[in-house]
Amino acid sequence: MQSSNITDPDRLPTAISMGDPAGIGPEVIGKAWANRHHAALKPFFAVGDVAAFAPHWNGPAVQISDPTECAAMFDTALPVVNVSQCGDVTPGAPDAIGARCAFQALEMAVGFARNGNAGAVVTGPVSKAQLYDVGFTHPGQTEFVAERCGVSTLNATMMLAGPDLRVVPLTTHMALANVRGALTAELIEARLLATQKGLTRNFGIATPRLALAGYNPHAGENGNLGDEEIALFGPVLEKLRSEGMDVAGPLPADTMFHQAARARYDAAVCAYHDQALIPIKTLYFDSAVNLTLGLPIIRTSPDHGTAFDIAGQNKASPSSMIAALRMASDCAVHRAVYDAQYG
Amino acid sequence: MQSSNITDPDRLPTAISMGDPAGIGPEVIGKAWANRHHAALKPFFAVGDVAAFAPHWNGPAVQISDPTECAAMFDTALPVVNVSQCGDVTPGAPDAIGARCAFQALEMAVGFARNGNAGAVVTGPVSKAQLYDVGFTHPGQTEFVAERCGVSTLNATMMLAGPDLRVVPLTTHMALANVRGALTAELIEARLLATQKGLTRNFGIATPRLALAGYNPHAGENGNLGDEEIALFGPVLEKLRSEGMDVAGPLPADTMFHQAARARYDAAVCAYHDQALIPIKTLYFDSAVNLTLGLPIIRTSPDHGTAFDIAGQNKASPSSMIAALRMASDCAVHRAVYDAQYG
Repeated sequence: MQSSNITDPDRLPTAISMGDPAGIGPEVIGKAWANRHHAALKPFFAVGDVAAFAPHWNGPAVQISDPTECAAMFDTALPVVNVSQCGDVTPGAPDAIGARCAFQALEMAVGFARNGNAGAVVTGPVSKAQLYDVGFTHPGQTEFVAERCGVSTLNATMMLAGPDLRVVPLTTHMALANVRGALTAELIEARLLATQKGLTRNFGIATPRLALAGYNPHAGENGNLGDEEIALFGPVLEKLRSEGMDVAGPLPADTMFHQAARARYDAAVCAYHDQALIPIKTLYFDSAVNLTLGLPIIRTSPDHGTAFDIAGQNKASPSSMIAALRMASDCAVHRAVYDAQYG
Repeated sequence: MQSSNITDPDRLPTAISMGDPAGIGPEVIGKAWANRHHAALKPFFAVGDVAAFAPHWNGPAVQISDPTECAAMFDTALPVVNVSQCGDVTPGAPDAIGARCAFQALEMAVGFARNGNAGAVVTGPVSKAQLYDVGFTHPGQTEFVAERCGVSTLNATMMLAGPDLRVVPLTTHMALANVRGALTAELIEARLLATQKGLTRNFGIATPRLALAGYNPHAGENGNLGDEEIALFGPVLEKLRSEGMDVAGPLPADTMFHQAARARYDAAVCAYHDQALIPIKTLYFDSAVNLTLGLPIIRTSPDHGTAFDIAGQNKASPSSMIAALRMASDCAVHRAVYDAQYG
């Protein structure tokens, strides 16, 4: 039965939660479908409201009742599983009905991945401000997905991935003043381990090479510019290396992201948001993908927001959505091989 | 007499302090000279010890007694003004004699620029650890040059410049924990003004467009992720805008350095070292130039260190030194035009 285990997840379609119906989510999903042949995308379906696409995109969308209908429909129209009515959608003008629709689409898309009806989930862009108004209580979609999967947020790890750079921030959306207090040995170890395992499980890298960025400029210059590298990072790295992890650092953050340096590791783990996101967005603004490591399911998302200011104007680039879809299905293949081997 | 004022500074040679004679300074200076035609470099001379070049570089070097002899010699050999004997130079093995030689070369090269014998100064890479042992007391060459020019370190402003990106860090070599305390309204205003004036005076940009990066991720998200943008940056920007400065921000740092974003400003002013240096070194690791704004003289330097580990092995790239020389002479032209116009 092993061959069946390996191939089946790869044959499952990817579920995309539509995101806020007033944002660019429906447009980039539609454009990704229109590019399905050119971009060699495997079958996927949207979760949301089939009527929400027309105000954004003039391509064909078709309602399906179940993910099993996706494969048969995918070549002729964008398959959409309806979970909610979004009401009258006005691009650029978000409202509570749309936010509830986005919330339910997210819930259902994650459910399809968890119960084995989808091989992976891609989450479309939502407005946190809108979601908070309709009862969403998580800091972001990542934490929501983690909770629905029964995974601690300590282990659900955000990765941003571009063509030749993957970065993992140890901390994400918090004031810079609060970062130092959040950087515990427990967190650093958990993120490094999730990154290591995620590279093997999702990217098929047998022995991942990690690089940890220093917290201070010049990685503290032997303690002259701060002691976090010695007092905090040092013991964690020593422990993980003794357990066999291939991890370089702490490295000066400014000199670890040029082309030759990027070739020396499979993922860079960084202390805080901007340290990780500046290099990936400087290099791959339109094509970086957000991937959550440490989950029982595969979850990616395009690395952009709702962009209400350009919604409905046919200006949004589907590059990041296409990259998120491709990464999701590629990861599904690696994950299937890994799970067949290691269970 | 105005035409004479404009052209004379442009005709003056550039002085390069040799840097530590055991580092890669002599090699990249020699290689820059060897590329003088190909790279269209204007005449320059080294300041140090003519005997220090042979262990690093097998091209011709000739001792001159005075910068006025540079132009006549430049086409046939690298002109060198001797200021000190470096003793026996062993590449990769720095010693106190070499450090003293580097110190005196720096002092003299700056002197040539200050007294009008050189149009600009380029400083070669030194070892701070070595310099401290021979009585150097400044945090770095930038502070030394500022002091010799009678300029407060508050006004001497470090800029890193590459082909389509210039960055200015508000703070440089300090522990990240100390950055917030160092970010005073006085400092931010001084750096923004020095950047604005420096772009006009050194780059010929009549009405510079500045962009200020936020301190917190997402530039604080309206105060939800830290209040520095509102409480600290806001009032400074309001004041400077009321005085006519074209300055955007505070902008989310992660989304201001991709190609399309870089085209929207002439310089990005950043809160701390890594925020500024990650994007410039990610993009232009081998070609970024360090330029000090706010000085009465033009001072650039290659954006690399002594690299003792590869000294004397013919491995060092002269790209950054060549870029530093070209920027120095380009700035001299702009500065001459500016000074003739505004005095």
